[in-house]
Amino acid sequence: MVQAVVARIEEKTTVEVEASARHIHLDIATVEKLFGKGFRLQQTRPLSQPGQFVSQVRLTLIGPKGRLENVAVLGPERSQSQVELSYTDAMQLGLQPPLRESGMIEDTPGITLSNGEKKVDLTSGVIIAQRHIHMTPTDAELLNLKNGEVVKVKVDGPRRLIFDEVVIRVSEKFATKMHIDFDEANACAYHKGMRGLIIKE
Amino acid sequence: MVQAVVARIEEKTTVEVEASARHIHLDIATVEKLFGKGFRLQQTRPLSQPGQFVSQVRLTLIGPKGRLENVAVLGPERSQSQVELSYTDAMQLGLQPPLRESGMIEDTPGITLSNGEKKVDLTSGVIIAQRHIHMTPTDAELLNLKNGEVVKVKVDGPRRLIFDEVVIRVSEKFATKMHIDFDEANACAYHKGMRGLIIKE
Repeated sequence: MVQAVVARIEEKTTVEVEASARHIHLDIATVEKLFGKGFRLQQTRPLSQPGQFVSQVRLTLIGPKGRLENVAVLGPERSQSQVELSYTDAMQLGLQPPLRESGMIEDTPGITLSNGEKKVDLTSGVIIAQRHIHMTPTDAELLNLKNGEVVKVKVDGPRRLIFDEVVIRVSEKFATKMHIDFDEANACAYHKGMRGLIIKE
Repeated sequence: MVQAVVARIEEKTTVEVEASARHIHLDIATVEKLFGKGFRLQQTRPLSQPGQFVSQVRLTLIGPKGRLENVAVLGPERSQSQVELSYTDAMQLGLQPPLRESGMIEDTPGITLSNGEKKVDLTSGVIIAQRHIHMTPTDAELLNLKNGEVVKVKVDGPRRLIFDEVVIRVSEKFATKMHIDFDEANACAYHKGMRGLIIKE
């Protein structure tokens, strides 16, 4: 009986974890410079966040020390271009981007985007994404969490650990999912469908 | 006063964290196959564990899906060859090694080691190292920890987190240091000299 209640509470306070690979967001001007006037990003695969998708195009990232090919461009177009890497990726490219929330690209390094011969030099926009939980207002109210609040999240398994400094981001546009990058995924022996227990302190 | 006492206790229960890059241990037979009869590993740089060192040679790892060049061979020679990778490395090579303590190589995948034209196919020996703390008997007694015991370790910083399932390994041959791989290092925004707080439960 007590166990059943505990299980129910835990289910309500757990969140599905998704591992994000390196990816690129583009503004319309950059899309047109790389793919031609009037070109628009189209969906080939939907992502878990409503309206977000993997587009039909991929780009090469060129940094001072290396390149990464075949990097997914996500859609739809955004107001500013942004490249999200893991520390592993950043080291390979020779960049030292800061840990940031998506969209906070002030004082971040630039990078070169290449579609074959067509290249664009971004002057800024490269970040390591701070781990975060996208949350619907309904779930946030249920868990008594506010936008911008920081929680811990415990994940189980052979490399179990507790992530600290996990930012809650609340919006009606979101589905409730936790996002980590591949360094973090590997550090906790991530598998698809993994759930994390939200711990408030 | 209380703060000073807390600081003293915390100093005693913290451990320096070291991030281990991918590396290779070789038995003498494999050394001689790759580098010639009578060849022995020599120290070019000492490691923190007494007697352990980075040797004068590097090898290429060849897996089913890729290769990693210029991988450090550590010395001295061991009784069995072993390759320690991160999950990132393993994916690049196309291998699925298990999470293991060093030396536990039963039922692990093999790999090809290459020194130019000279190649050796290991039939097993590839592991992802389980995070662990090397500890002197003196420190283990001070912290009331036993060989094989599992603790949590909390690290601070912008990506702070608590590693669980950290194995204590006690030996007179050890210096007290925690070892994590580069996926784990990146997941906690590791910097050299970082210390972790040991939490017993």
